[in-house]
Amino acid sequence: MNPQLTDLKHRLMQIYDLNGANALLNWDQTTYMPRGGAAARGRQTALLGRLAHEWFTDPAIGKLLETLRPYEESLPYDHDDASLIRVTRRDYERAVRIPPDFVAKLNTHLTETFELWLKARPSNDFSQVRAGLEKTVDLSREMANFFPGRAHLADALIEYADYGMTSASVRQLFAQLREQLVPLVKTITAQPPADDSCLLKFYPEDAQLAFGLDVIQQLGYDFERGRQDKTFHPFMTKFSLGDVRITTRVKDHDLREALFSTIHEAGHAMYELGINAGYEGTPLANGTSAGVHESQSRLWENVVGRSRGFWEHFYPHLQATFREQLGEVSLDTFYGAINKVERSLIRTDADEVTYNLHIMVRFDFELSLLEGSLAVRDLPEAWHERYESDLGIAPRDDKDGVLQDTHWFSGVVGGAFQGYTLGNVMSAQFYEAALRQHPTIPTEITHGQFGTLHGWLKTNIYQHGSKFTAAEVVERATGEPLNIAPYLRYLKTKYGALYALS
Amino acid sequence: MNPQLTDLKHRLMQIYDLNGANALLNWDQTTYMPRGGAAARGRQTALLGRLAHEWFTDPAIGKLLETLRPYEESLPYDHDDASLIRVTRRDYERAVRIPPDFVAKLNTHLTETFELWLKARPSNDFSQVRAGLEKTVDLSREMANFFPGRAHLADALIEYADYGMTSASVRQLFAQLREQLVPLVKTITAQPPADDSCLLKFYPEDAQLAFGLDVIQQLGYDFERGRQDKTFHPFMTKFSLGDVRITTRVKDHDLREALFSTIHEAGHAMYELGINAGYEGTPLANGTSAGVHESQSRLWENVVGRSRGFWEHFYPHLQATFREQLGEVSLDTFYGAINKVERSLIRTDADEVTYNLHIMVRFDFELSLLEGSLAVRDLPEAWHERYESDLGIAPRDDKDGVLQDTHWFSGVVGGAFQGYTLGNVMSAQFYEAALRQHPTIPTEITHGQFGTLHGWLKTNIYQHGSKFTAAEVVERATGEPLNIAPYLRYLKTKYGALYALS
Repeated sequence: MNPQLTDLKHRLMQIYDLNGANALLNWDQTTYMPRGGAAARGRQTALLGRLAHEWFTDPAIGKLLETLRPYEESLPYDHDDASLIRVTRRDYERAVRIPPDFVAKLNTHLTETFELWLKARPSNDFSQVRAGLEKTVDLSREMANFFPGRAHLADALIEYADYGMTSASVRQLFAQLREQLVPLVKTITAQPPADDSCLLKFYPEDAQLAFGLDVIQQLGYDFERGRQDKTFHPFMTKFSLGDVRITTRVKDHDLREALFSTIHEAGHAMYELGINAGYEGTPLANGTSAGVHESQSRLWENVVGRSRGFWEHFYPHLQATFREQLGEVSLDTFYGAINKVERSLIRTDADEVTYNLHIMVRFDFELSLLEGSLAVRDLPEAWHERYESDLGIAPRDDKDGVLQDTHWFSGVVGGAFQGYTLGNVMSAQFYEAALRQHPTIPTEITHGQFGTLHGWLKTNIYQHGSKFTAAEVVERATGEPLNIAPYLRYLKTKYGALYALS
Repeated sequence: MNPQLTDLKHRLMQIYDLNGANALLNWDQTTYMPRGGAAARGRQTALLGRLAHEWFTDPAIGKLLETLRPYEESLPYDHDDASLIRVTRRDYERAVRIPPDFVAKLNTHLTETFELWLKARPSNDFSQVRAGLEKTVDLSREMANFFPGRAHLADALIEYADYGMTSASVRQLFAQLREQLVPLVKTITAQPPADDSCLLKFYPEDAQLAFGLDVIQQLGYDFERGRQDKTFHPFMTKFSLGDVRITTRVKDHDLREALFSTIHEAGHAMYELGINAGYEGTPLANGTSAGVHESQSRLWENVVGRSRGFWEHFYPHLQATFREQLGEVSLDTFYGAINKVERSLIRTDADEVTYNLHIMVRFDFELSLLEGSLAVRDLPEAWHERYESDLGIAPRDDKDGVLQDTHWFSGVVGGAFQGYTLGNVMSAQFYEAALRQHPTIPTEITHGQFGTLHGWLKTNIYQHGSKFTAAEVVERATGEPLNIAPYLRYLKTKYGALYALS
């Protein structure tokens, strides 16, 4: 092998392993760590994070990437080596623009702000984090300014999560979607709401967890290379391609909580677990964007996991597990309950139809905050007004308003939210493409067979890791650019039937 | 503060945090890691271990230690700064003698040998690890030879675990002890054995674990700074002074297994948790030797946890937890059962009286293997003969013979075992001293009050961490040098009563 490439891969592997170790420190912090471990854990993660950044921004890596340019150019675009060099260069050029001192300053500030938020949210007091958030907006601008020449301050930050997208392209897509969603929500919510009381009975925690594990095992989550533990906020984390874990949380009076978060996170995990094993230790061994990642969690959670066919297979098992709670509840009632549409305040609890309206509020506010056209002090009131106008329901307090999401209190403002809606849009586009090639998939799902779908996703999306950009993945897998038509067809068909829309 | 000392402490803190992170990687590997994570985990731990060694052997640390010598000499011996500099220098001078290449070679070899042992033991086949162990003996000699000028090859290796002890001093102590133990074992085992059938009933795992946790909480193990998980081999591990965890294993047909391993590991953990918080991030924030560490686990496990007074308090609770199994079993029967003396093959299952004979076999063999007077190929036979002559019982196979312990298959040969017996000896000496100062301790224990004992241990042993050597700790805490008299008094009193010896 090319000696420069060997050297590069060796360096990348060490950085990868350092990041994997750091991910374990974070996983442990939210799963099992006793409180007394917090101070040292903060130092440990900062140390490993700083080292990884130092090693990756080592000018030696820049030199290797330059030396490797002719080799890269001699190869086809989709050759693994060419892709490795290309993607590493993209990440490297981004990383070296940010001074290490800024990274340290930002991380310290975000850690402090997160601690404040942990207290501010339950005490419903935005004023406790206002100054922190103001500084975060300033630092987010400072960060964006390390990448000059973009049309909008947010663009550099959006790029981090969804490479290839800009504030303009996201805005355009969201505007198209909004035009259709707002009347759809109006029509549906004008009807009597679905009865979801069957989900709100007492469901013992252990049985819920066992059922969820059985479901994701059938979907294809590999427990030889993963596991599930409990946390306050569910997430997926990767220590290597052989160890991709998920977490969940259980509400003993809401069957949805653990079940759908388990399927959601398993979707993220199956993406990472499906990456070409040969990419281990390189920047290719990651999902390619926030949007594509979310498309995989939402595809399994919603398109599959909230479909009628899926429950034709699983509902008898669920009834057998919870005979007392569901024995007399029909499949149709259950199916209606898990797809209940309603105007609500909390993004993470929102149904498929209203969910994207929550995202659009946040995305627009990120742009306004960065532009300075919205001041942090006016955010709670702006939130209130926008929810009133878009969702027809306004939060009575900040806890269920501007304080509900962790994103702006643990990360920069900008690029944090668009991936959720991009993912929803993509999930339908991918699923349509899979069905064009394998029309039997819906029938297979009713028989509890998920292999054809999982295989299609692996071949067309998972295996490539970060080799292709989100736009390339969409185009290659579906034959057309990202567009909202499949998603709208999906929503209108499904909810048209559920709510007997004309 | 002295700027050199600040610099030194800053460097030591980073190494400490790296080691803490590495300890978490190891903890996770044995508790929760799915199998698929093994390959990357090996790389991650090797990377962090190599870094910690590189940073600690940085010549800049040697220079700082030299620069700090006048400051150290201006301070009393037991001043914290003087102790930090002294102990760091001792560790540093040892670390720099070992070439990094040798460390890498040794670790690679031990990892391979350990993997072989994991298979050799259940298949009862010493030949699978013979060549590996031969190389380990060679490497152990090579390691010992980095420290010339010792009377015996083993001395440098013993020093690592039990600084201040030599093969000669251990031999002398062991000979004295053996002279008394062999006839004691003979006298006891000539009597009818205690009936331990009450411990061998079915005990549900969850109830066993809950009871064990309740016990160690009462002893003073702080669950805000620790936790217990299950592993195949119980151990204690520390990520920082605020996070010291233990593990246990449960046998559902042997009540002893989880209960006493839980108390044992909690003893280790309470030692680390009791270290002066100001030592965090330095080499002082560790137990001072294998022997002193073991004295703390054995003191709580045996001297306290297998005492009659302890069970006067806990036995009613245990009976209430396991009414069916123990409701009709008297305290005396139970007390006799947990202190049953018998000639047995497995060290970790051995009772207090025979336990040290197991250690002496291993200690002597370590010396002979290093000297070359015993060849690895002759080890199984020598093991057989020695067990026959010392314990009056010989293993039928290697699984219960030379393959039973992990030590020689995951570490160097030399210094691995003496700490266990040193710990037993010290445990009685410490306990006697505590009772001289607080004669009410045994009565308090019968009332479930452990604070006076815990406090005495903290004041006299725990808080000092590695500030004092083992010999200094013993002398300071008990007023006399390490000696076997208290231990023999303890054994003869306790077992004299149990077995009605004259």
